[in-house]
Amino acid sequence: MEERLQKQLAFALEIDKEKNIFRQTHLTHHGRRENDAEHAWHMAIMAYILQEYANEPVDIGKVMIMSLIHDIVEIDAGDTYAYDQAGIATQKAREDAAKERIYSLLPDDQKNEMIALFDEFEANETAEARFAHAMDNLQPLLLNNSNDGGDWKEHHVHASQVYGRQVKTKMGSETLYAVVDDILQENIKKGNLIKD
Amino acid sequence: MEERLQKQLAFALEIDKEKNIFRQTHLTHHGRRENDAEHAWHMAIMAYILQEYANEPVDIGKVMIMSLIHDIVEIDAGDTYAYDQAGIATQKAREDAAKERIYSLLPDDQKNEMIALFDEFEANETAEARFAHAMDNLQPLLLNNSNDGGDWKEHHVHASQVYGRQVKTKMGSETLYAVVDDILQENIKKGNLIKD
Repeated sequence: MEERLQKQLAFALEIDKEKNIFRQTHLTHHGRRENDAEHAWHMAIMAYILQEYANEPVDIGKVMIMSLIHDIVEIDAGDTYAYDQAGIATQKAREDAAKERIYSLLPDDQKNEMIALFDEFEANETAEARFAHAMDNLQPLLLNNSNDGGDWKEHHVHASQVYGRQVKTKMGSETLYAVVDDILQENIKKGNLIKD
Repeated sequence: MEERLQKQLAFALEIDKEKNIFRQTHLTHHGRRENDAEHAWHMAIMAYILQEYANEPVDIGKVMIMSLIHDIVEIDAGDTYAYDQAGIATQKAREDAAKERIYSLLPDDQKNEMIALFDEFEANETAEARFAHAMDNLQPLLLNNSNDGGDWKEHHVHASQVYGRQVKTKMGSETLYAVVDDILQENIKKGNLIKD
């Protein structure tokens, strides 16, 4: 087998590990915790279905592949909970090392392409990155809301923390941000989020 | 909220259930069984990385969305193991009913689009459907091979059964079929597949 194909298949096998990286979000119907691969799958389909609400026109194929790969670094770096300040402080260094190791399994051209996609997502400066971020925020919020805000209650999350994070949703989609705002207001009213 | 957006969000929430549909394939490193959402995520990334090996040029965005949604019907219809003849006999009727119920959650235009994509995948007559099928076959084979053919051994699978299924891989990619063939020959030699 050609070395190029061998490297691509090694990468394909390696990313299987993302299915073992569990997030703080629980599946609907008070299910188990969700893993990164499931989250990425869900985000990519949501991006496709909701693309008409992006603030700017997006290349939806690019949003999908960006969504699908955005958490691969967590195979090494682990999931950093959105409201874990200590974790967030070391997140970039851990993810940079992971990015280098995992994408180096690929042939150089694809390594460079995947790292560029991941970096574009992180920088959040293009229409595609902004819409992908809106999905990254909206997807767990929908699950958590369906579970009566259980994940927020478990972690004693303040409304201001969620609003701080959801600024990125607004950059990707004003329409979907309005949905998020309604959901957050309702959860504040119910006491699922701490008002501050 | 507009009825259109309400329907799209209801669909987004409903498909979360796909994460609870477990397949016969086990994750690498002799892990737990894989679920449909993880499988679809894996297929879509593999399609992107391996697109250069498609027999015909493909619209990779279309291959990805087709891969991501191809098992949504299993939320109602359940997973049918590739070598379960009794299950296969009733599979189409179960999946047709599921397709109608689940995609009807969407606005009509998107319901029609998603059903057309699913039907195109099933018919296996376009370049995109054929390459998506190659991924649908290659992905579990790579995992199973990494686990020393454990899934085949557990189900006493014959080589001819796997070769029968992998015909579709050849239609999507001659190059990847050569990889599959090597893997199968090696697993026959090891006794992981029953020679017939």
